[in-house]
Amino acid sequence: MKIGVLGTGAVGRVLAAGLAGRGHDVMIGTRNPAAATMTDWFGDQGRGISAGTFADAAIFGELLVLAIGWPHVKQVIDLAGPEHFAGKVVLDTTNPLRFEAEGRPPVLDIGHTDSAGESVQRWLPDARVVKAFNIVGNPHMVNPDFPDGKPDMFICGNDAAAKQAAGRLIEELGWPPAIDLGDIEKSRYLEPLAMVWIVHFFNSGFNGNHAFRLLRK
Amino acid sequence: MKIGVLGTGAVGRVLAAGLAGRGHDVMIGTRNPAAATMTDWFGDQGRGISAGTFADAAIFGELLVLAIGWPHVKQVIDLAGPEHFAGKVVLDTTNPLRFEAEGRPPVLDIGHTDSAGESVQRWLPDARVVKAFNIVGNPHMVNPDFPDGKPDMFICGNDAAAKQAAGRLIEELGWPPAIDLGDIEKSRYLEPLAMVWIVHFFNSGFNGNHAFRLLRK
Repeated sequence: MKIGVLGTGAVGRVLAAGLAGRGHDVMIGTRNPAAATMTDWFGDQGRGISAGTFADAAIFGELLVLAIGWPHVKQVIDLAGPEHFAGKVVLDTTNPLRFEAEGRPPVLDIGHTDSAGESVQRWLPDARVVKAFNIVGNPHMVNPDFPDGKPDMFICGNDAAAKQAAGRLIEELGWPPAIDLGDIEKSRYLEPLAMVWIVHFFNSGFNGNHAFRLLRK
Repeated sequence: MKIGVLGTGAVGRVLAAGLAGRGHDVMIGTRNPAAATMTDWFGDQGRGISAGTFADAAIFGELLVLAIGWPHVKQVIDLAGPEHFAGKVVLDTTNPLRFEAEGRPPVLDIGHTDSAGESVQRWLPDARVVKAFNIVGNPHMVNPDFPDGKPDMFICGNDAAAKQAAGRLIEELGWPPAIDLGDIEKSRYLEPLAMVWIVHFFNSGFNGNHAFRLLRK
């Protein structure tokens, strides 16, 4: 599958490399594809991944991954061209984080009556947005594995087929079948869940080796 | 320890019976302690538990458990007498649920900039409120056990000693050491986490046999 990953931060790199490693044809979109800062990565984890502008990656991908810091999401969508998202599955990995003080956990910029997931869906009304990969740190996004088993990925979105497509990628990346919470409004619960992860990260010495599992019987 | 449990719904009964089963001296508080609806329970799971008014239970307990439906929490605190909570550890099990349509999950009545935990702490400024037991259904509040292990309990509150006392009770009830997220404001994340539990409950045929675990390494 041709996949465009928008964003070259840790999340974008990890997901781009993971998806390329499963045989997908991945282009990573960035503000300036000629920047030298990515050179090492393209020779190593990013081998075989092409680089383009946000618009290049959005045009390229049959499925798109949004991996952009919250303050820049809307701008990147505008740079990429909202029309290039139309009809496509868009994995929204973002959390609406607002950092207020050095060394302290961020807070959610929006919530309760809105969410990043819903915002992205509003900004891309013709895209099929699926909230995914927002509840775990990037070191455990691909092939997550803990002594007590595998964590679970929760997703939500308005389009059932889009959630199936997202679910297939999630399983390819080494997760159990994703747990679908419902429509994109359920981002109002998954973004605070990311905050539980983030607060524990700050409380536990920035270890980051934790992830959620939904025990069932 | 003398424990007052306010509320005779499923959560109040389960926690009262669980705590009495660990040797604590438990009084359950209710609007009308003479009501016949509890008779069977006092002869069975509730054996050895005494009944009183909300004020009786609040006076009786060295530690108090709030297990009241959100629309009635403030009223029950007023009936019990806020002065009887002063200085005591109060386990707040509540979620600010608003039910809007039959057969559909509730939504949170407040969130993002406020929470039930913070509301309870405001209503009881001299109490030491600890959010606990809000993220799991009542059948798994005592001796939780799943094929893949034990779930985790997240707590938060402003008073470290109160969280230690809450943590001891949580472990007595068969949980691993509780995960402390921080001050009572973290209820803004734990109440949406309850919604993940509740939405999955609605999505999975009202089975309720699920609970969260924080995998770590």
